[in-house]
Amino acid sequence: MEPNKIVVRGYNLMELIDKYSYADLTYLLWRGELPSKEQSRMMDVLLSVCLEHSLNSPSVDAVRFVASCGVPLQTAVSAGVSAFGDWHGGTIEQAAKLLQDEIRVTREGQQSLQTTAEAIVRRFSESKEKLPGYGHPTHTADPRTKKLLEVANETKIRGAHVELAQHIESLTDKYFGRRLILNVDGCIAAIISDMGFDWRIGKGFFIVSRAPGLVAHAYEQMYNDKPYKAARWDEVVYTGPTERKIPGT
Amino acid sequence: MEPNKIVVRGYNLMELIDKYSYADLTYLLWRGELPSKEQSRMMDVLLSVCLEHSLNSPSVDAVRFVASCGVPLQTAVSAGVSAFGDWHGGTIEQAAKLLQDEIRVTREGQQSLQTTAEAIVRRFSESKEKLPGYGHPTHTADPRTKKLLEVANETKIRGAHVELAQHIESLTDKYFGRRLILNVDGCIAAIISDMGFDWRIGKGFFIVSRAPGLVAHAYEQMYNDKPYKAARWDEVVYTGPTERKIPGT
Amino acid sequence: MEPNKIVVRGYNLMELIDKYSYADLTYLLWRGELPSKEQSRMMDVLLSVCLEHSLNSPSVDAVRFVASCGVPLQTAVSAGVSAFGDWHGGTIEQAAKLLQDEIRVTREGQQSLQTTAEAIVRRFSESKEKLPGYGHPTHTADPRTKKLLEVANETKIRGAHVELAQHIESLTDKYFGRRLILNVDGCIAAIISDMGFDWRIGKGFFIVSRAPGLVAHAYEQMYNDKPYKAARWDEVVYTGPTERKIPGT
Amino acid sequence: MEPNKIVVRGYNLMELIDKYSYADLTYLLWRGELPSKEQSRMMDVLLSVCLEHSLNSPSVDAVRFVASCGVPLQTAVSAGVSAFGDWHGGTIEQAAKLLQDEIRVTREGQQSLQTTAEAIVRRFSESKEKLPGYGHPTHTADPRTKKLLEVANETKIRGAHVELAQHIESLTDKYFGRRLILNVDGCIAAIISDMGFDWRIGKGFFIVSRAPGLVAHAYEQMYNDKPYKAARWDEVVYTGPTERKIPGT
Repeated sequence: MEPNKIVVRGYNLMELIDKYSYADLTYLLWRGELPSKEQSRMMDVLLSVCLEHSLNSPSVDAVRFVASCGVPLQTAVSAGVSAFGDWHGGTIEQAAKLLQDEIRVTREGQQSLQTTAEAIVRRFSESKEKLPGYGHPTHTADPRTKKLLEVANETKIRGAHVELAQHIESLTDKYFGRRLILNVDGCIAAIISDMGFDWRIGKGFFIVSRAPGLVAHAYEQMYNDKPYKAARWDEVVYTGPTERKIPGT
Repeated sequence: MEPNKIVVRGYNLMELIDKYSYADLTYLLWRGELPSKEQSRMMDVLLSVCLEHSLNSPSVDAVRFVASCGVPLQTAVSAGVSAFGDWHGGTIEQAAKLLQDEIRVTREGQQSLQTTAEAIVRRFSESKEKLPGYGHPTHTADPRTKKLLEVANETKIRGAHVELAQHIESLTDKYFGRRLILNVDGCIAAIISDMGFDWRIGKGFFIVSRAPGLVAHAYEQMYNDKPYKAARWDEVVYTGPTERKIPGT
Repeated sequence: MEPNKIVVRGYNLMELIDKYSYADLTYLLWRGELPSKEQSRMMDVLLSVCLEHSLNSPSVDAVRFVASCGVPLQTAVSAGVSAFGDWHGGTIEQAAKLLQDEIRVTREGQQSLQTTAEAIVRRFSESKEKLPGYGHPTHTADPRTKKLLEVANETKIRGAHVELAQHIESLTDKYFGRRLILNVDGCIAAIISDMGFDWRIGKGFFIVSRAPGLVAHAYEQMYNDKPYKAARWDEVVYTGPTERKIPGT
Repeated sequence: MEPNKIVVRGYNLMELIDKYSYADLTYLLWRGELPSKEQSRMMDVLLSVCLEHSLNSPSVDAVRFVASCGVPLQTAVSAGVSAFGDWHGGTIEQAAKLLQDEIRVTREGQQSLQTTAEAIVRRFSESKEKLPGYGHPTHTADPRTKKLLEVANETKIRGAHVELAQHIESLTDKYFGRRLILNVDGCIAAIISDMGFDWRIGKGFFIVSRAPGLVAHAYEQMYNDKPYKAARWDEVVYTGPTERKIPGT
């Protein structure tokens, strides 16, 4: 950046804007290079698919409570962003790490994806750890996964990571006794891995995807609802010790 | 600060620790001088009185939701602190500003506190604005106000600002048709004003006072409750448009 | 939202993704309706134009310091978002409020935009208040303003608010003795006002626009720089009292 | 909590305030029981010792940048709290975990603390991992450690964890070729472990200890400094690709 000129990764930002969308520029910022037409389409879908998930989301609940306290819009959004932890969007990173590590192993060992998948599912079922990117508390067939795979096929972005992810899904019945669906986090993880993204930027997709929704919830809470939204005192269940005397009184 | 030595407002921190408490050092940081014995006692009570208010508090609710997402302890506490807005602790500042402005006017105009109080209450009842520091959604006689006033009397810290605050309270029946109690925010505001604090640091008292409680709630949520606490999808009431077709499809 | 189905403002999110971009869906979330082709183009440019402004931005500096402390990616981004205050992105809201208020006045009074503009500039120059949306510390001709106006013209979105904003700019020489350029905040404010957005959601544009950049800075700090980035102790200038003895020692 | 009554861990908060300090009440909130006289003194020192570390601290730097943007006081403090990550205060938790794990091993194996200490230092020196709680970038003899140990001795709170921590320190010369001092984080970790605190609440001590300082820095930045504090554009070193043409233009 210098006076009257803003350059992003070597390109003049104003010239970029004539030919590239917001999703393309996000790709440029995170990868250092401009996307192809196929990568552009995939990127836009990746950023759109998690847009909104209603109040059934702890980050949105946090936004609502903070927004009710008489704070500026960005403060409430900031609290929501801070909630994108290991169990709320963070699975993208864990799943992408797993897939990227295992594809490396597969290639080095020159083994089949089927073999790798079987080893993974067995390992997780034995250790009783959660398999990151599989299962969903609400959806039994995550519509977002279906759409993402459709676009990954169309754009020919689909590669070894997606294939491995699907092998894993198909083996969950056998090892876990029930189908653990490839959920939206796992599917995003597989696709961004096939696009060449480092797993450690995985949460960036969730942050950008959810940002407009957090803004909308903060706005709605601030201007269309009552201030000071808190659990009512008579709804709260106190689980501490019963009332007692202070020693020596 | 320099290697092997930490100096706070001119005093060596390690020497201070032998003679002064945490509340005293907070006073030193915020005022630049050490407190007297009376100021020390008052300060400690000011920082203790808002310690905890259960889940009946939007900041605690925000802490709980964020803490459930798989984040470090400080992230959840940070979200709680961000919620101390105009309607949640912020009243301390608004009430302290009102009292400090009005005491200045009273002194300049050489008028009685009774006259000033009457002018204030009349103004707020006519404009139908909320009188900052008065009324409480849960308490009808805020036990924290009683304790604060007791200590302010004992330590002789009580001065013109507290007196004005009490005059105002006693006039609410006449002008609002019901008693608006001097609540904890209003009482803290009056006392810190009598102690000479700038109203703009008022929220600092609330932040420090509530910090241990936010830590306790974050800890409890993280280690004694289930992860991923969100409103259930079937509890959420959707108020948007009914389902509709995309134009052109 | 219900199992296996996500509906946004009445539309099925998965169907939307086939025809609408991320910027379009942001428009839908914030307005409740889908954008026209022209609104779609304008929206995308609005979200792209503030993408990145290097370390010459306090939010980016905050992200860098927090990211250096051993925290998850989203924590650093959250700190950056929290910095979008009145003087950092917030001008969008102040400028949009001014323009929307004054266009209302203009229409009600059936006066010319030139008259309104003159009244505004005179008022601000007399009160010596900062005119929100005008002037820039680094740019003398903000390239982002130029691009935004170009697209607003092409899409025919440009209306009374943009016109008023330009009248104001042209009068700054006369009233302030120097040209105060219409900056990117002021220009966004004018355009979103012509698009019908409430000024109170103005900061949402800045948040979404800057989010990918904050992610990129957090990532770069976490993985390509040293941990624990702090001002060095010998760079810090202590301005407090000189060292002194504790009373009574 | 119920109308007109606030009960903390079974005790009436207002009655507590007559006999217990802020530090005592923090102990009660975190442990569920009231402290003894010795625990009370130790607790107060634990909360005071990290009070302030000037701008030589990334959380304070973050507070300063955010506070400069035109945000409420608590927003800036919140950003500072969010920076208390693994490398900034977080060492308390890592060191306390290490000490608590190893004391358990020592007791189960009925081995001497000297043996345990030797095994730990050898392990860390071989793996070249950072030994949590040892070494400091600025201090060669951390004055805070000295004070903490002095009080831990006086109050007889010092126990096996502190002893182990000191054994480790004395072995660093032999295994690392230089003295790695027991720093303030490591010393707090040892003492709270001897007091029976779970290592996972370790960061709570740092949060509460630093809160008044963050408030003071936010206040100073907001009211005694210029707004919009950012790295100057000509101080920033751009390390990306040199300017280049967009493909196809």
